[in-house]
Amino acid sequence: MTWKNDRLISFSSRRKAFLTGQSNPRDLLEECLANIAAFEPAVQAFVVMDIEAARRSADASTKRYLAGQPLSLMDGCPMGIKDIIATCDFPTQMGSPAYEGHQTLHDAACVHALRSGGAVIVGKTVTTEFAIGSSRQTTNPFDVTRTPGGSSSGSAAAVGAGMLPVALATQTQASTLRPASYCGAYGFKPSFGVFRIEGVHIMSPTCDHVGVIGASVDDVWETASRMALSVGGSGRAFMQGAGEPLIPAKPATAIRLYTSGWQEMQAPAQQAFDDSMVRLSQAGIRILDRHTDEAIEKLEKTLESCLSCALEIVAYEMQWPFRDYVERYGDKIGPRIHEIMGLAQGMSRTHYEGLLEMRRDLQRQISHVAKALDAEGFLLPASSGPAPVGLAHTGSRTFPCFATLMGLPAVSLPKLSVDGLPFGIQMFHLEGRDRDLCAHAQWIDENLSQ
Amino acid sequence: MTWKNDRLISFSSRRKAFLTGQSNPRDLLEECLANIAAFEPAVQAFVVMDIEAARRSADASTKRYLAGQPLSLMDGCPMGIKDIIATCDFPTQMGSPAYEGHQTLHDAACVHALRSGGAVIVGKTVTTEFAIGSSRQTTNPFDVTRTPGGSSSGSAAAVGAGMLPVALATQTQASTLRPASYCGAYGFKPSFGVFRIEGVHIMSPTCDHVGVIGASVDDVWETASRMALSVGGSGRAFMQGAGEPLIPAKPATAIRLYTSGWQEMQAPAQQAFDDSMVRLSQAGIRILDRHTDEAIEKLEKTLESCLSCALEIVAYEMQWPFRDYVERYGDKIGPRIHEIMGLAQGMSRTHYEGLLEMRRDLQRQISHVAKALDAEGFLLPASSGPAPVGLAHTGSRTFPCFATLMGLPAVSLPKLSVDGLPFGIQMFHLEGRDRDLCAHAQWIDENLSQ
Repeated sequence: MTWKNDRLISFSSRRKAFLTGQSNPRDLLEECLANIAAFEPAVQAFVVMDIEAARRSADASTKRYLAGQPLSLMDGCPMGIKDIIATCDFPTQMGSPAYEGHQTLHDAACVHALRSGGAVIVGKTVTTEFAIGSSRQTTNPFDVTRTPGGSSSGSAAAVGAGMLPVALATQTQASTLRPASYCGAYGFKPSFGVFRIEGVHIMSPTCDHVGVIGASVDDVWETASRMALSVGGSGRAFMQGAGEPLIPAKPATAIRLYTSGWQEMQAPAQQAFDDSMVRLSQAGIRILDRHTDEAIEKLEKTLESCLSCALEIVAYEMQWPFRDYVERYGDKIGPRIHEIMGLAQGMSRTHYEGLLEMRRDLQRQISHVAKALDAEGFLLPASSGPAPVGLAHTGSRTFPCFATLMGLPAVSLPKLSVDGLPFGIQMFHLEGRDRDLCAHAQWIDENLSQ
Repeated sequence: MTWKNDRLISFSSRRKAFLTGQSNPRDLLEECLANIAAFEPAVQAFVVMDIEAARRSADASTKRYLAGQPLSLMDGCPMGIKDIIATCDFPTQMGSPAYEGHQTLHDAACVHALRSGGAVIVGKTVTTEFAIGSSRQTTNPFDVTRTPGGSSSGSAAAVGAGMLPVALATQTQASTLRPASYCGAYGFKPSFGVFRIEGVHIMSPTCDHVGVIGASVDDVWETASRMALSVGGSGRAFMQGAGEPLIPAKPATAIRLYTSGWQEMQAPAQQAFDDSMVRLSQAGIRILDRHTDEAIEKLEKTLESCLSCALEIVAYEMQWPFRDYVERYGDKIGPRIHEIMGLAQGMSRTHYEGLLEMRRDLQRQISHVAKALDAEGFLLPASSGPAPVGLAHTGSRTFPCFATLMGLPAVSLPKLSVDGLPFGIQMFHLEGRDRDLCAHAQWIDENLSQ
């Protein structure tokens, strides 16, 4: 039986009413504000917000719809911005006392893309310290004793609780898919390099991604499309199909991955995921796995052997600016970051080059396996079950970090639950297959709901 | 007859005396400060400096040498940092009123590399507005009525006037090699991507390079080596030979390029360059050119056809954050940037993708030609002769921009002059041949001096 998060407020489904005049962005904003009033005291998803500015922005959007001239598909969408992403109208405090009150003079590229498309920026959402260190105050909207996941804690909790349709996130290891999974929201991390990353506080130049957490597949896809299309190029990949409407597409064949993450899951979560795979199978998707194909078994072994590689690459690349921060700001920087800098200290450049080579090998292998088996994506849990109890730790990064390390597009669908606590089905695809992935995810989302 | 800039203060040659105790970093700093006192009133290379902090830093370095424990090859080197590069101890004002007083909370990656290696940061050097807009106050150290070149105006003028041995620069089109050429300094822009660029104000993610302006080939090479080695990786290229001492190497064969830049030069400058080529030929370097090889003639045509492509790529990519700046800061942003944003406005993503494809073709072609002719680099002027009169314009970008567009390592050697005004010989090489290039440049530098 699949689960549904009834609190979600999908922007794409509301927009239709804006176009016909039956509703407007101000109405939608007020609905969000009512939920913020109801849930924010317990959830604490926001660092800062400006409700009056958001109302003015929503009213301006309403006028544009009335004139039949919305600026983009995202015009009028209330949004939250993760607090490591620069905004010119709010401070960007990185979840760190070292950045208390820090104000940039520009919007990050992704924020500029959305704001210039008419998005209504409601506020900044809580991040763990620099998106990798100590956890902050946000709680899980389904159980205040549980983590919302990190590092995009506030973005996922705000969307999952119905306080916003869309919030920007980032993912360097697990930071979009994991909190989306725990908070019952949709998460999308596209192929590496399709968005301009500038204005997002850096951690790892080869692993940092901008991600989107939203209330539907359309919401995350259309937000991503706007970001991919509307600011100048990065010279790297372009997002496949950016700007095109999604047409749900059934994947003929998919590869299910267990990996070591499966052992981290408790039996009810395993059962819920197994059931969803059975239903997809019954719906006609051919699902291959390590029991059916030796190549998949081999791939899983490689994936597992690369788990520590993912953190090591991040640690090595984090040396700028975090070594400087640790020296300059001392105790204002949390213990986890000190610890990672310790790990990096012992790494040689040759070792780092070896890690990059391992990653390239892994990328080649996964591409080879998918093509040889004619698979249109990979299926796996988005997290090792629902959110664990406690706010200090943000949960296991095993399942979400594979796609990040390889730079592959990945989606989390909030379709599963154990005891009323959500977790997601993850699907990822090969590099550059962003539109295809979202179209498949859309199909699965719709068909698992029936 | 080749020229020599007698004002240059080479750090690498002074360092030997630090190691034996005959001199020390404080002595060197005082020598620089005396030149600053003498020349800065006319040259105006600095935005801000902190002489007492520099003295403290030089004294600390002196103690390390006395203890036989310098932190790196650059320990004790007085340096200037271009004012689009973030420094935690000085504001970073981008040559723009929009960034007046702007203070970052970290050093840029390249600055962190140098500071942690013991470099003595004397101050911030003047940049044109955001390294592409309006010129500022700096004058040419050889003639106050002439431009020092841009955009790294202050860095080149400070080194050329003997106020500093080394200063950091950037190059997105011509901004390291051109001012180095005009100011009689050595300039080095390595292969694209070998330094961490973060903390440098962005213009174009595919054309921005950190560059070094210094008083000798060793100075620029050793500064570059420190930056390449000492902060975490970018996942892109590693600088060939970083950290190894340079051994001067005579190139057996080089390709001389004329291009349309040759027509921009006046006869005496052409003569000076021609003479230097004759001398290199006499020294035994086989110099090929468009008159000897049809492939070179064809290559020159392609290079010329890509000149506008270089600016267009930059314009398209500059849309973030400059579109935002133009809207937000209006007249605080100079007319040139408004104009470039106008150019970008009319460009489609398809057009941009076409430009990237043109660049890839050009990269393939130049690599093919060099390999087919067994050439160890390309020789051309670093600028179209000496600095032109006037401070509003920073000179032609034709000669320096080829290597930038293609991401190739390039050096400017201050060996030529007309009427006492310097200009440089440029040598560039294929991607990844940074050490080989500097070793050849070193050989040419030494042999043209004899």
